[in-house]
Amino acid sequence: MLKKSFPLSKVYSLLEPGPVVMVTTSRKGQPNIMTMSWHTMMDFEPPIIGCVISNGDYTFESLKKSKECVINIPTVELAKKVVGVGNTSGRSVEKFKKFDLTPVAASYVSAPLISECYANLECKVIDTRLVNQYNFFILEVIKAWISPAKKPQKTIHHLGKGAFMVAGRKIKLPSKMK
Amino acid sequence: MLKKSFPLSKVYSLLEPGPVVMVTTSRKGQPNIMTMSWHTMMDFEPPIIGCVISNGDYTFESLKKSKECVINIPTVELAKKVVGVGNTSGRSVEKFKKFDLTPVAASYVSAPLISECYANLECKVIDTRLVNQYNFFILEVIKAWISPAKKPQKTIHHLGKGAFMVAGRKIKLPSKMK
Repeated sequence: MLKKSFPLSKVYSLLEPGPVVMVTTSRKGQPNIMTMSWHTMMDFEPPIIGCVISNGDYTFESLKKSKECVINIPTVELAKKVVGVGNTSGRSVEKFKKFDLTPVAASYVSAPLISECYANLECKVIDTRLVNQYNFFILEVIKAWISPAKKPQKTIHHLGKGAFMVAGRKIKLPSKMK
Repeated sequence: MLKKSFPLSKVYSLLEPGPVVMVTTSRKGQPNIMTMSWHTMMDFEPPIIGCVISNGDYTFESLKKSKECVINIPTVELAKKVVGVGNTSGRSVEKFKKFDLTPVAASYVSAPLISECYANLECKVIDTRLVNQYNFFILEVIKAWISPAKKPQKTIHHLGKGAFMVAGRKIKLPSKMK
């Protein structure tokens, strides 16, 4: 899926609702993917994201070394693959192949975008102070991409143990909030 | 609404999907409320939460001083109040009165629970290392409460500028994930 550039100033609107994401990294030229739900926006612009990546995950070492990743946002159509990715380890599985996902070269980082995801955020690690104690990485989004598709994008939100809430209807209220 | 105790080991399942929450604090005996969407789980048990509370918010100083708060999870029925709370400041508004919300004494912290919210998490600040640079507080949940209501609880998820996604249908996939 060809993506178009997405304004960095609007990245928060993609992550603030709390979707499950897939994080891609690269290690000695081999790409890997993990599933992640523990993330938060930390600033609007440049967009800063905080996220927890367990030190048991293969991605942990890759991210620590390369200091780069892509956050890919899947929709409900990919739910089975999202769970598959979350239930396997890059130590023993080539996940792009196994789950029939398409890596696309990023513009600024070594990790690939996942073509099938509707949005992709190229990120650099900017702060590792809380990595040792909490496995908490702080990322800056340096480039964002979005699918030009106009249909509603139904993200999935993890409730635990393979149960997900699928994004529902939208409501709009008068608000001064960003 | 009378609440029942909720296991700390399951707190992640309430916050991991990314709902908008309301944070209560207490300052010189006066309770206050703010609306927040920038939070993430950081550990399962005890449940550790990271969240961003802007240093421009009245809650920032209250939380820094008292080192205690309650995270209250509202459902869509409260959406208007959630936005109202987010659009006003505790400096000039007594929010419990203005938005007709009911404070209930917590068990372990000075901040009150919001009775109308379906879940309430009593929290202590345990790490302030990233407060100066990112307004990022790390909290431990020491007691959790939930409404005994059996009907589905439709949380709201902020998309920016007063637009919200309302929690949709649930799906369940076989998974080894917690």
